Amino acid sequence: MRQIPVELGEGSYRIDIAAGLLCDASWWASQVAGRQVAIVTDTRVARHYLEPLAKVVGQAADGIVKIVLEAGEHNKDWKTLDEIFDGLLAARCDRNTILIALGGGVIGDIAGFAAASFMRGIEFIQVPTTLLAQVDSSIGGKTGINHARGKNMVGAFYQPRAVLIDPATLASLPPREVAAGAAEVIKHAAIASRPHFEWLEVRIEALMALEAETVAQAIEESCRIKAGVVAADEREGGVRALLNFGHTFGHAIEAGLGYGTWLHGEAVAAGMVQAAELSVLCGRLARSDAQRLTELIGRARLPVRAPDLGWQRWQDLMAVDKKSLRGAPRFVLLKGLGAASLEAVDAQLVKRAIDANIAETRTPVRGELLP
Amino acid sequence: MRQIPVELGEGSYRIDIAAGLLCDASWWASQVAGRQVAIVTDTRVARHYLEPLAKVVGQAADGIVKIVLEAGEHNKDWKTLDEIFDGLLAARCDRNTILIALGGGVIGDIAGFAAASFMRGIEFIQVPTTLLAQVDSSIGGKTGINHARGKNMVGAFYQPRAVLIDPATLASLPPREVAAGAAEVIKHAAIASRPHFEWLEVRIEALMALEAETVAQAIEESCRIKAGVVAADEREGGVRALLNFGHTFGHAIEAGLGYGTWLHGEAVAAGMVQAAELSVLCGRLARSDAQRLTELIGRARLPVRAPDLGWQRWQDLMAVDKKSLRGAPRFVLLKGLGAASLEAVDAQLVKRAIDANIAETRTPVRGELLP
Repeated sequence: MRQIPVELGEGSYRIDIAAGLLCDASWWASQVAGRQVAIVTDTRVARHYLEPLAKVVGQAADGIVKIVLEAGEHNKDWKTLDEIFDGLLAARCDRNTILIALGGGVIGDIAGFAAASFMRGIEFIQVPTTLLAQVDSSIGGKTGINHARGKNMVGAFYQPRAVLIDPATLASLPPREVAAGAAEVIKHAAIASRPHFEWLEVRIEALMALEAETVAQAIEESCRIKAGVVAADEREGGVRALLNFGHTFGHAIEAGLGYGTWLHGEAVAAGMVQAAELSVLCGRLARSDAQRLTELIGRARLPVRAPDLGWQRWQDLMAVDKKSLRGAPRFVLLKGLGAASLEAVDAQLVKRAIDANIAETRTPVRGELLP
Repeated sequence: MRQIPVELGEGSYRIDIAAGLLCDASWWASQVAGRQVAIVTDTRVARHYLEPLAKVVGQAADGIVKIVLEAGEHNKDWKTLDEIFDGLLAARCDRNTILIALGGGVIGDIAGFAAASFMRGIEFIQVPTTLLAQVDSSIGGKTGINHARGKNMVGAFYQPRAVLIDPATLASLPPREVAAGAAEVIKHAAIASRPHFEWLEVRIEALMALEAETVAQAIEESCRIKAGVVAADEREGGVRALLNFGHTFGHAIEAGLGYGTWLHGEAVAAGMVQAAELSVLCGRLARSDAQRLTELIGRARLPVRAPDLGWQRWQDLMAVDKKSLRGAPRFVLLKGLGAASLEAVDAQLVKRAIDANIAETRTPVRGELLP
């Protein structure tokens, strides 16, 4: 088993990674023995993993509550959150109940925020089942829901008591979602590790094909990078904002087209190409390094061009970004492959970076650079 | 100025108490200089204090946003919370914005939860304007909203950066709300300080008449007791639960009649009489001490009898109390005047304690024991 500590003082916890861990009775016994457990998942994930998980957890727990939500980013709102509260209260869950978030990034975010705010906070365990959640969103304690005026505008920093990653669950994942997860793998390498970036340049096709050893290593390396950043800056006062590389543009794409039209990872992929272009325009990044990043994104069958939202709409959407100061967006720029910084940028350069990478269609064109 | 520290390590802050402090320009300059400020209040409080406060804060702040909500406990829900988020986002507030919660307990709870969860947490200042909020709810970082299945079921432990208490704001408070605040003053004395209880037995009429020195001293003493308990147990793992004396019954009264029918302090008052009766039935408290508590509550023009909800309904409502373990309610019992403990109690004794103090009407009968 690969184990990665997330060092946060009193709130420290461990990420455990192993194929088959989802149904490991002794792992669960060590976490939930004698406690009431509520499993929160969505309809898609429930089909594959809810009953096997409920069975193994049930051997150790004192009672299980199952809460199954509708899948999808467009359900990451108050209404769905309230379904969790309703389910917990109907089953007489209390402050001693442990919540398990079983699913992708949406489930982790919404169930994590439910755990953060139910009776002002109960313990929870992240069990991510998508590549995106395994390499990124389940780590670091960001939880929340969307608001009509912006993504993830309401939420909490709230750490899980543990993260269980079973790469075998990726077998049931559609290729489009594997690619979306790879976007965050590439992002972590781009901002923090040139060796990992170069490893990905060799292994990207093996990763997309879910070759077991490659997947496990990519997950481990991404988790290590993210855990290190989170340990240094839990509440995003500084360095943690670098994890938002590609996200200022990416969030605008998601919101501009309506959440769920593009997958988060797809929007971040096109956003990283724009952010790399902006880095070049600002004199921070060599054109050849931006090109290497764009090529890697294309080989991961991710879009390298953004939809045409119109400049005014781009501006409005980016102004509500959480990194903004008094309405002025700030951008994570690359200073080379494996290094990044957060900067305010002249709006005209932002416009040029966007214009340089606009697609002719609003549908994500995947792997555009492939032969 | 009376100053009380709330010792919570990194999250430590100060309670400042002085008549006229609400419009003290130098106090505000020390808190909000150069920052965008959002003032959240309700229609009733806004009439008296919004413009004076906005004027003095505006001298130091970089921009002011005013968000005025409908008053009342029945509005302490997601819909109202979302109005705050909407107002903050429409005004392009960001993570650097400071939120001011100006009002009673409902405003403090809901605006505090908005501060806790807007962009995963922004700074806020509590400016309580009711006696109940000044002596109790603004201290200690409990924030939240109600759920159809129970009061304060959704929220966060989230500490303000400061609490400003201006007793002069009580002049505009209806006598019924002064009494409701006195209930928590009595509660703090009953669980933690026999000398303060005996001081109240002498000063209760002066407190109800808002005699300035008495009010200031009562507020200071209540804040000291509460701050001490909170410092010892911020997240209610132990001793903090004692602040819930009278609240297991009280919350059931509020929920059973519909939030807002009785004021929180009125429900707690009748709940304390029931809890004292239960303490006597459990052999923890002398009958004469229970009688002294009941008389003090009556002299504060608070109800000493609860409405007749029916035993089944009492049980259902108390089962969702946050102190419950697997559906079994626990009660704060007095072990004398100035001492308390949290205990599970036989249901038949609970029923007897309720039956001993049922009123013939659902309207709170105030000061029933007065000559």
